[in-house]
Parts: sequence; C-alpha cells; structure tokens
Amino acid sequence: MVQFVNVTNMARWIQRESVEKIIGTMIDYLERDFKRWEKFDKIARVASHTPFGVIELMPTSDGEEYSFKYVNGHPSNPARGFQTVTAYGMLADVDNGYPTFISEMTLLTALRTAATSAMVAKKLARPDSRTMAMIGTGSQSEFQALGFRAAMGIEDLVIFDTDPEAMDKFRRNMEPLGFRIRLTSSVDEAVDGADIITTCTADKAQNTILARHHVKPGVHLNAVGGDCPGKTELDEQIVRDSTVFVEFPPQTRIEGEIQQVEEGFPVVEFWKVLTGEEPGRRSAEEITLFDSVGFAIADFAALRCVRDLTAGTELQDSIELIADPEDPKDLFSLVGSLKPIS
Amino acid sequence: MVQFVNVTNMARWIQRESVEKIIGTMIDYLERDFKRWEKFDKIARVASHTPFGVIELMPTSDGEEYSFKYVNGHPSNPARGFQTVTAYGMLADVDNGYPTFISEMTLLTALRTAATSAMVAKKLARPDSRTMAMIGTGSQSEFQALGFRAAMGIEDLVIFDTDPEAMDKFRRNMEPLGFRIRLTSSVDEAVDGADIITTCTADKAQNTILARHHVKPGVHLNAVGGDCPGKTELDEQIVRDSTVFVEFPPQTRIEGEIQQVEEGFPVVEFWKVLTGEEPGRRSAEEITLFDSVGFAIADFAALRCVRDLTAGTELQDSIELIADPEDPKDLFSLVGSLKPIS
Repeated sequence: MVQFVNVTNMARWIQRESVEKIIGTMIDYLERDFKRWEKFDKIARVASHTPFGVIELMPTSDGEEYSFKYVNGHPSNPARGFQTVTAYGMLADVDNGYPTFISEMTLLTALRTAATSAMVAKKLARPDSRTMAMIGTGSQSEFQALGFRAAMGIEDLVIFDTDPEAMDKFRRNMEPLGFRIRLTSSVDEAVDGADIITTCTADKAQNTILARHHVKPGVHLNAVGGDCPGKTELDEQIVRDSTVFVEFPPQTRIEGEIQQVEEGFPVVEFWKVLTGEEPGRRSAEEITLFDSVGFAIADFAALRCVRDLTAGTELQDSIELIADPEDPKDLFSLVGSLKPIS
Repeated sequence: MVQFVNVTNMARWIQRESVEKIIGTMIDYLERDFKRWEKFDKIARVASHTPFGVIELMPTSDGEEYSFKYVNGHPSNPARGFQTVTAYGMLADVDNGYPTFISEMTLLTALRTAATSAMVAKKLARPDSRTMAMIGTGSQSEFQALGFRAAMGIEDLVIFDTDPEAMDKFRRNMEPLGFRIRLTSSVDEAVDGADIITTCTADKAQNTILARHHVKPGVHLNAVGGDCPGKTELDEQIVRDSTVFVEFPPQTRIEGEIQQVEEGFPVVEFWKVLTGEEPGRRSAEEITLFDSVGFAIADFAALRCVRDLTAGTELQDSIELIADPEDPKDLFSLVGSLKPIS
C-alpha cells in the first residue's frame, strides 16, 4: 500500500501546525538536501508546452529515494476559475522501484517555494532587513510573507498587484496574523525603501515588472515568477548589475531571469553558499538576486518533510496504487480464472 | 476531484470483461492513436538508472489530453518477493493542466504491452501463423498469449523459461482457458516450427536469448524484453537479417535491440504501416522483427480506454489530489486563520 496525504489532510496539518512552524522545519530539510547537492540525480524538468500553459514533471533521486512532482502552470486559469498552479507528487524506494508515498502538492509547493526563498534570503539579504516589497499578491504571496517572517522576522510588507482584489485578499489574510501591510498603486511606490523585493507574478511573457531604477544598492531580490521559457519579470540590466544565485544552472538558463543574458553569464549555485564553497552577500551595497525557478530537490525535501511529520497519524491514508501478487511472477493470478469473481 | 481506478477495481474489471475482450477493445484505441502519431508530443522516456534497476517517467500529449506513466524495472525484484515492473499513471486536461484520472498500471501495462504486440503481429506475422514460441513465462506472458489469441487466433504455445516453476505457473493459468501448451527444456526446442517467437525476459544485460539459427525465414519476432540501455535479447545478426519495426526511433535506438547496430540502421516506424505509408510484411519468407520497448502513446491509449470503459461505474473512486479553493488566487484560504480548525 502507498501512503497518501490528500488535500483536506494537508490543509488540516498546515492549520494545526501553522505555516510558519512548518516552513521553519522545511528549511532544515531543504538545507540538509541542498548541502548534499552532488549526491542527487539532476535533470532540468520535463516540460510539455502549449499555448495555454505548461505541464511539467520534476524527478530527482539521492540514490536511496526517488521523487517526482507533476505540476502545471496556466497563467490564464484564474480568469476561468482555476488555479494557475496545481501539483501532486510522490516518493519511491530506489532499491525496488516501488512507490511509497503520494501527496497533494498544490499547498505543499506553496510551502516549499516560500521555504526555499526564505532559506536563501537568510544567507543573502542584509541581516538588518526590515521591509519587504511584494509585487504580485496571488496564490503564493501569503506563504512567501510567512516564510520571510519565519526565517528573518520581516513584518512590514508593502504590496502591489495589478488586481486590487488580490491586494485586498492578501491584506484580509495577513493582517490578522500581525503583519503591517501597506497597499500601493504602483511598483515605484511599493519598492521605495524596501530591503527585500519579492516578485511573484504569473504572466507567461517577457515582462519588465521591475525596471533597473527600482532596485537600490543593498537590496535582495527574490524573483519567483520568472520560471518558464519566455517568462521573465526583471529588466535585463538588473540581472547584469546583481550577483545572481540559482538552483540548478542548466534549468535556470532555460527558464529563469538569466534566459535574458548570454549562456556564459556568471551565476552562483546556491548550494555552494550553504556548504561554504562560495560566499553569500559580500557587502551592504551588493544587489543579490535569487533567480528562483523551483527545482526538484526542493520537492524531494518537502515530500520527505510532510511524510515524516505526518507519519503514524490519521493524516495519512493508504491507497491501493500498486499491484502486489503473492508470487511476483504471477501477476495474472490477480485476474485469472482461478480467482473467484468479485 | 480526480477519478481513480485502484488495483482491486482494475482486477475486478479485467475479470468481469476478460483479458481477451479488453485487449480487443484496447487494440482499437491503440490503432486510433498510432494512426494520428504526428499529433503527439513525443520524447524518449525520462529514466533514472541505478545498479538495481530503473525508474522511468513516460509523458505524452495529443494537445488535448496529457498522460504520463511512472514505471520501474528491477530484474532482481522477484527473487526478493517484489515484481520486476510496477506502474501507475494519469491523464490531465491540457487546457487547464488539471489531472482528471489516475490509475494503477501494473496490470494495465501488461494489457497494453500485449495489445501493442498483438496489434503489430496482426499486420506483420504471416496470416497463416498457428504456433507461437514464448521465451520467458514471467508476469507478462499470460497477457501476451491472450493478446495473440484475441488478435490472431493463436492457441498453440511452445514455452521455455530458465525457471521451471514459471513454466508450471503459465500452464496452470492458461490451460483452463483452452490453450494447447508444450513445455520445453531449451530455446532450440521451443522455437522449432514456430510461426511467431515472443521473447520476454527480464535480465538487465546484453544477452543472446535467441541465436541467429533459431529464426527461420517467415517468422515474426515479437521482442518485448530488450527495453533498457544495455538490455537486449537477440543476436545482432537477427536484427541485421530482419525488417525491423519500432515505436519511436529516438527511444528504441537507446533501449531496444537496435542499440546493437549502428545509428543509421534502417527501421520502419510501425504507425506508418497502419496509415499505409509503409508496407508491412512483403513476403512469406521475410523475417519481421517488432523491436518493442513500450512507448508513452500506448499508455495514453490504455489510460483512455480504461477511463472510458469504467466511467460511471463503481470501479472508479474519487480522490482529493488537487486543491480547489473557491477563489483561485486565494490558496491560503484553505489554511488561513479565518477557516475553522478541523
């Protein structure tokens, strides 16, 4: 039997434990796996593009466990009542190839994306950062805000979205949790005085959400929304004037902000900052840019985190996904004439 | 909600309908999709290899529906009480990226592999074929036998396996269904006089299950077991002396029997035989070889077949795999402070 965490149980778990507490634990899982980066089987995700969006498979393995995630990205979905991103994923035992765990990952992806951003910002943002500008207040935004509070104590948020209702929604969700939130009517206004800028928009196009003059010295940029070929959020000059940190360069060069610059453009693999092989922020004036596209190792860590933390509870169901005949060479026994018809 | 066919329900369906009847219908689904081959997004499957085996993802899409299968191949599994191959898969709606259907595919893969072999043999084997030699009587073998009876009326089987218990198992499963079965103690004995030879063994190595002298003029070879880099079953000279038919050349050149020959070795894409662009068998003396490795489009067809044929019955359950917040931009509403804690 395969253990299964469905949407209701994932939501129940997050409510009980709180987003911030889970993100705190998830950062530990992420750091552990990012530090042993070289152990993993790594490939750029496998994407099927259509005019409406993209469907992707994101596999990885550390040689003992295998994971993959199914995830879509359809920017025009919300206008039709669907979410931009939905996901689910699984773990399997590499030794015999059997799936062991399957989970909803729409919520889990929001948690792991926020946890990854927060883990990175802890190393790259100025330690005295107080204010975060958030451009885009869609599905991921609340999780990002809670991640940054969990990791860095950020409570002052200045937000902008082209959809005023999305800003109202954000305020409605976050103010009861103690954040100080200022709504603005332009990117210019939102980024003014920000220590950290998070961009998280969903358009499938080469956009310039942030222009070069929006980014002052010393800022940490958490660029989450450029995650598809042809989908970027930043002025190319910002990329050129920043120190750029990435997850897995072969994937980020196809999908991230750095698709705007030449193949040889220097980037730092973030896992090397964790192991100490590369420095993080080097001065209070440096602009650091996390060109986040989301990588399979973060999903691997997130799946193991939820599997471990819900093990033995009623939050996991068993589902019968994998046939298990008594004699492994006799699959036919499950359907053959000697079996009583049920 | 996503519709789900679990192992018990798949087995129940197959028992009620019978393997042969389902394979007959599945061949219609396969032919329909193979005939519109050019419509599909096609990539070689994404494999993660370890010393113990392989885990693979097999995605495809016709632009309207997307499918993928998770499947492992671990030749040393049966000795430890596990199956060599287990699988599950899903369908999704390309338009919005949402999964719609998920199914066990260990049994379904056995059905679709047999249906594919049978569909191909109908076009390539001599119409007067009466006897099939089967080398390897593991998990797939009963399904292959039933597929060939469904498509070609084959009832005379001569079998060989290095494991005598696997041969006994095959006879026990198949004799009650009306097959005439002869057990042999060597490949030489098994292939003597056979019109069709099916090889379906599981070793992860470059083997020569069939030598050149085993294959007489006019034979159709259904080579199922060579399906992994470094895993082949046939003497190279058999490949050279046959007309070779394949599913998707870029995948078969990596995984199939033709990995033994040079990159430019001529092969026929089987779908072109169905559309009439290429001839099938051209003479009673020709050796035809179906170098089968299994391709995603066959899984796509098999998933749609089981989805359609079990629709509206108690064989499908609903599972809550994908989060569905009322406001698609408000994923946080599923876990936020305004939601009563359950």
